This record gives sequence, C-alpha cells and structure tokens, in this order.
Amino acid sequence: MQTWKDYQEKNKDRFLDELLELLRIPSISAKKEHKDDLLKCAEAVKDRLLKAGADKVEIYPTDGHPVVVGQKIVDPSKPTVLVYGHYDVQPADPLELWNSGPFEPVIKDGKIFARGSCDDKGQFYMHVKALETMINTNSMVTNIKFIIEGEEEVGSPNLGKFVSQNKELLKADVILISDTAMISLDTPSIDIGVRGLSYIEVEVTGPNRDLHSGVYGGAVANPITILAQMIASCHDENNHVTIPGFYEGVVESTEVERKLMAEAPYDEEEYKKDLGVKKLWGEKGYTTNERTGIRPTLELNGIWGGYQGEGAKTVLPSKATAKISARLVPNQSSERMTKLLLDHFKSIAPASVTVNAFEHHGGEPYMTPIDSKGYQAAAKAMETTFGKQPIPVRGGGSIPICALFEKELGVKIVFMGFGLDSDNLHSPNEKFDLANFYKGIETIPYFHKYFAEMV
Amino acid sequence: MQTWKDYQEKNKDRFLDELLELLRIPSISAKKEHKDDLLKCAEAVKDRLLKAGADKVEIYPTDGHPVVVGQKIVDPSKPTVLVYGHYDVQPADPLELWNSGPFEPVIKDGKIFARGSCDDKGQFYMHVKALETMINTNSMVTNIKFIIEGEEEVGSPNLGKFVSQNKELLKADVILISDTAMISLDTPSIDIGVRGLSYIEVEVTGPNRDLHSGVYGGAVANPITILAQMIASCHDENNHVTIPGFYEGVVESTEVERKLMAEAPYDEEEYKKDLGVKKLWGEKGYTTNERTGIRPTLELNGIWGGYQGEGAKTVLPSKATAKISARLVPNQSSERMTKLLLDHFKSIAPASVTVNAFEHHGGEPYMTPIDSKGYQAAAKAMETTFGKQPIPVRGGGSIPICALFEKELGVKIVFMGFGLDSDNLHSPNEKFDLANFYKGIETIPYFHKYFAEMV
Repeated sequence: MQTWKDYQEKNKDRFLDELLELLRIPSISAKKEHKDDLLKCAEAVKDRLLKAGADKVEIYPTDGHPVVVGQKIVDPSKPTVLVYGHYDVQPADPLELWNSGPFEPVIKDGKIFARGSCDDKGQFYMHVKALETMINTNSMVTNIKFIIEGEEEVGSPNLGKFVSQNKELLKADVILISDTAMISLDTPSIDIGVRGLSYIEVEVTGPNRDLHSGVYGGAVANPITILAQMIASCHDENNHVTIPGFYEGVVESTEVERKLMAEAPYDEEEYKKDLGVKKLWGEKGYTTNERTGIRPTLELNGIWGGYQGEGAKTVLPSKATAKISARLVPNQSSERMTKLLLDHFKSIAPASVTVNAFEHHGGEPYMTPIDSKGYQAAAKAMETTFGKQPIPVRGGGSIPICALFEKELGVKIVFMGFGLDSDNLHSPNEKFDLANFYKGIETIPYFHKYFAEMV
Repeated sequence: MQTWKDYQEKNKDRFLDELLELLRIPSISAKKEHKDDLLKCAEAVKDRLLKAGADKVEIYPTDGHPVVVGQKIVDPSKPTVLVYGHYDVQPADPLELWNSGPFEPVIKDGKIFARGSCDDKGQFYMHVKALETMINTNSMVTNIKFIIEGEEEVGSPNLGKFVSQNKELLKADVILISDTAMISLDTPSIDIGVRGLSYIEVEVTGPNRDLHSGVYGGAVANPITILAQMIASCHDENNHVTIPGFYEGVVESTEVERKLMAEAPYDEEEYKKDLGVKKLWGEKGYTTNERTGIRPTLELNGIWGGYQGEGAKTVLPSKATAKISARLVPNQSSERMTKLLLDHFKSIAPASVTVNAFEHHGGEPYMTPIDSKGYQAAAKAMETTFGKQPIPVRGGGSIPICALFEKELGVKIVFMGFGLDSDNLHSPNEKFDLANFYKGIETIPYFHKYFAEMV
C-alpha cells in the first residue's frame, strides 16, 4: 500500500527519535535500583500508545514491575490481534565492553546501538508505529490490543497471574510477537518455536570464612574446586548433558524435519569468524542449527568466588556461586527441569561442602504450527515486503510467557521477529539495524490486512 | 629478666597504641591505588625504629614499594641478628564480611581486630618493642638489624635484587622472622619449614563477545564450562593432583618424621567445628597436618566470569578467569612449578577456546635445621617464657624471600611466630591476641640473649 509507505517515509525521522527517547530509560528489570526507571518507562509506553491513536491505555501494577495494556477497537466484529512485547531490558554489564553508553543510544553505520534497541524496545515499537500508520491512513482492518510488560528479562514472574485474571481484557484471535530474529534482510525467516528456560543459582559453601590458602590449603574443601567439579560433571566427552533425566520429554525431530532445517543458509566459516572462535562446540551428532534449535542445552551464565581483584590473594574462599540455565525444547517442562537441576546439584555435592540452590525463573518451550492462520498471515506479509517467502526456523531463545498465553487465552502465537542473531542481545553493544526497524514497520500492517482476510 | 618485664608492663598500653596507629594505614601492596599508603607506612616504620633507639634507619626505594632497613650496632664483635618483617598487608575484600573496618582496629575479647594485626604488622612490631626494651634497660647483647619490606604479600618481586645488592648492609649471623603461627599459648611451637608458592592466573576466552545464551547456547564453547572442566581435571578422586610432574622433587617424609608430626595436638572434631564443615577434604593417605605441612597442594584462590549481579542474565560469556596457586614443599622449585602450571593449563585447553595464562608471583620452600644455633636459641627463649619446650612443626604458609635470603646472606632463618592458625590471616576479621602480642615482646629479648651466648 503506497499510502502506508508514504506516511512512514514522511515520518521516519520522528519514529526513530521517539525510539531513542525510550532507549534512554535504563529499564533493567533484574536490578532493584531501577524500579523507578521501569515505572517511568511504562508511563512512556502508555503515552506513546495514546499518541499513536490507541483509544484506551492503562498501566496495571503487579507484585513486580507494571504491565501496560492498550487497545484500538475499530469494530468488535473484526478480528483482534494482541501484540505482546516488553519494555524491560537485560543488565548492561560488563559496562567496560560497550563502545558507547548502553543508555545513550548512538546511530553508527546505519545501526542503533543501545541496550534494548532490538530486545525488545525497538521491536515492540515497530508495532506502535504500524498502529499509527494504519490509524492515520484510515486503514484499520483489525482491532489491535497491546500488552507490553516489564518483567520478560526476569522470566515474567507476575504476568501469568495478570493474564489469567484479565482474559476478557486480553481476548484476541491471535497473539503477535516481535521479540525474535530472522536470518537476514536477504533471507527472511519466521521462528516457529522458542525454547523454554530453567534458570537456577547454585552456591557452594566450604569453610565458614575465607581461609589462608597456605595454612588450610590441602586440608579443607575449596568451594571453587568443588563447584568446578560439579559443573564439569554435567557434560560428557561428546558434550551431551549427563544430568539424569535431562533429555526426558524431548520431541526428537524426524529426518524430514532435520533435512528441511539443513536447507537454511549457514556458513560455518562465517559463523566461526563472526564469533572469533577456531572451533565450534556442541552436542555430538547435531548440527549448529539443531544444537541451538531443537536440542535442550545447559549453559553457565555466571560464576564467582574468592579474590577477583588486581594482583594475587592467597585465599581459600568460603563460597563459590554459579548461575546456570537450561534451554528446553518441546515437550519439556520448565517446572520439572528446574526441580531436576536443583535436586541434581544438591545431590552431587560432596559432604565436605554445603550447597544452596534456588530458582531464578523459567518458561515453557513453545511451537507455532505452520498451518495456523497467524503463521500464514505473517509469511504472506513478509513475502509482500521482502519479495520472497520466509523460511520457518527454530529459534534458540525463550519467551517465558508463550505457553501460558496460549493456555489462558486459547489462541496461537506468531513470532514475527525483525532482529538479527548478530544484534548482541544480552551482550555489550546491542544494536538494531535501521533497515530492519523500518522494514518491520512496513511489514506489520500487511500482517493485519492478511490476517483479517483469512479469519 | 625482671627489668625487661617491668619495662614492658609499664609501657604496654603505649606499645598497643603505637601498633594500632600502624594498623590504621591501609598498606595493601596488591592494589596500585594504595601506593601512597605504602610509602606512608614505610615512613611510619622508620619513625618507630628511630624512636625505639635504632641508630640508623633508611627507606630504600625499589621498582615497587620501598624497603625499610634499620640497625642498632652495639659492638661489631658481637653477633648480629637480622629481623625480617613486612609492613604491607593483603587486600581486605570481601569487605562486607568484616565486623569492623579492616583499617579501623578495635580491641574485643582481648584481641586486636584489623588487617595486618597478625600478618605482619603486629608481629614485626614485637621486635621493635623488644629492641626498645633492651636499649632502655641497657641489656643489648647482640647487634640488631631490621629489614621490613612492603611487597611480601605480592611475592617480594623486588626484594631479591635489593638483598643481593646490599649484602654488606644486611650482613648478619642469623635471620629472625615472626610471620608464622604457633599452636597455642599452652602449646608453643616453632615452624621449621614454610611452603613455597607458585601463583598464576588463567583466562579462558570463548566467543569474542558476550552472547545470548539462547541464540548461541549449545553451539559455542562456554568459557565457564571449559574452565570448570580444566579445574576439575586437576584432582583425581583421591584428591591427588593429576598435573603431570606436580609431585616431582617432593622430599617424602620418613615414617619417623610422620610419627613425630602426629604427636602435635590435633582434635579433628574441634578443627571441623571451628571451620564449620561436616567433613574434611584432602589428599588420600595423609593426615591434616601432613596435608598442610609436607605436601604440595593446588588451590583455587578466585574465579569469575559472566553475570554475577542480582537476578538472572541469560548470557553466554566471552571470558572466564581463575586465580590458581600451588604450595610447594622441599625440594620443589617455584620457577619450575610456575612453568609447569602455565604450560599445563595452556596444553589442556580445547581448540574451541583460547587460554591466556600468566604468573603472579612465587617463592621457594624453606626448611630450618633443628640443630641450628638460631633454632636452639629460639626454642630456649620460648621455653623460658612459656614454661615448656616448643614443638617443631611444619607450617603451611609461604614467605617467598626465605630461600633467597639464605642463598645471598649465607645464614639460616628462624621462624619464631606468635600468631595462631585461627587469626584469620588473609581473611575478613583478621585478629591478633593481645596475650600473644605481649608474649612475643617478652620472649624476643631472650632469643638475643641465648643466641649471643651460643655463638
């Protein structure tokens, strides 16, 4: 539609400026000291939705950070699309590796560098600008609801309750989420699955205080050594996870599915070069795409203990701690996996230490059927604006709330992501290409058009 | 000698006040930002030596922190005792575990709580006050030299050069060091050996940037996992160190020696209770005293990588790092062990990561012969003031400069330590019992008396 394109072209600089404003708010949900920033960000999201033309927007408090819900109802008889996104972001550490301030967005080489630029402020904001486009060009063919939350990066601990208590408010015919990546602008793709997550913390305590490593070393269990042994015991020489029951429930892909996956463009040399590694690593018997798409994995997200400062300190520390998470695939249960991990790390602790393990958060895996109307509308929308059919792929990341959304609201979810794997999500120098941002805004109205035609 | 005791009793409060002044200077040698504090502390040591009656004291700059050398020469024909000590201290981290400020000394339950109270400000200061006692009671029977350095806690990297360039200045008949512990006031003991040290840092790099653990997890080596595997591979199920060549050169103790060691008082239940552990840990086939005294050990002193903050971050980190040290026993070489460790950690790194390893510092092990005049004088001095013969024991800690002292100056070293293993050296809440501080000051003049009589 030329009118959409004209409107967007005329307003593109303002669209970007508005996004940069949002990116300046350090809405890090994991850190208590940013509580006010989250509130400020929720207010900003509400304001933007109203200015885009939503006819009702409310900020709902939760036991954690608030949820913003807005809507533009044009005709109750038309289909309703519920757009989900999140205004919270990951912590910015390690700060010293950023080339510019994580909350001082800069445009460089056609990319927006800032925490949240892609995950997810930049992506959910495409939907706000698509809404504005359709309203101002009088071309709304669906009702659109928004639910933009502030706790996705900490596992959406309070959203489940909110959703189950507000089913009528959120009632829709499909849920549309832009919080994933596609292969490239040349090779559009749609995630048909996200992995689930179980995230725990394991603290190993040896002696009741830090000790002199000379006076006591050799006679008392060193919690770093023990924690390292516990971590090392979790993978075998083929990089299979050895925790009993870890692979239980995994739906094995058929040879046909694996063959289809292998058709997605993948250049191992390029992949290694981009990451700066000489050799890849992973579960024997699976390709890189399979390892990140269809297999559950166990990752160490953080570790610390003892002296970490400049120089040397001859200490035998009292404690060592690790943050550990598993990515889950259909049909694994996050609740079951979390319990499995907690029990496992407690059970393998030798008697010379004590282990305290607790859950951070989790989320179930989710799959979108390719023959669902939502997927079909998304594929057709991308084909329209990219000039070629998107490839269905399995994403490695997690959006904790998906399974619950489907259970509570009874509708399917479509992941129409416009990020790239190389966007440094959760890492220093997170970025979002301007071309992808604008392509998203251009594509989204077509989703509504085709979805309305199909339903 | 009643005159010594009277003098010390009359001045004991001032002795303590002076020590507390020294303890207020945060002379942490490992941290660059404390460079001025080290200088200030060296000046304070010089001032105290002069006030105690030394007739010459100089501060000598080095490439690192300065060395303080002082002397009181009463008669060149009398024997000379060189007292070694250090005015630098270990870092105070983790600060949150201290019950009071590490550099705001407090007296509680008859103990001085402060970083350096025992290691080694409190202990070398006993010698300054013993010097004052002997001068002011006209009872000097030896010449006394002092060498108090500022880099012991970082491995004395510049002292070797200073000693070899100043042999005449430091010329003595024996070297006396109070930088070790004894069993208790009821069971006096003298360390006849200190372990050597090799201290390295190992940095494992996986991908060139922090990655999203969902997008890349399972396909790229996680440096925390790899580092944990490397650490875990260093001990077998009997807690023997598995690094090839690690035990090379170790002088195995005879059955007779081991029997003698076993006679030292040791209550395993008390030991475990003090440390708050249910079970001890260590090399199979050796007792606790043997594990910390006559066996080389490998300890993890610190580890860090990935997200260590509040909450959860789903990151696959770029780097993970560990500080690792070995304690060495006669006749192991620190230089050889350091190379062995560096080579080992580089050699076991899988191709999916790169490993950078470098040395922090090291020091050779040292043994004092029981039949040396220095040991005999120390034993007799302790017998005089404690009322019972001290037990010769093997200490677990390290004093890096010992082997070099003997080589350069051609004399034996005696370790007459008045600390306790429970003094929390290198740990939060380091303390030194007032009773031990005063017992040291009382005992030291007898060492000079008996040593002069023997030579």
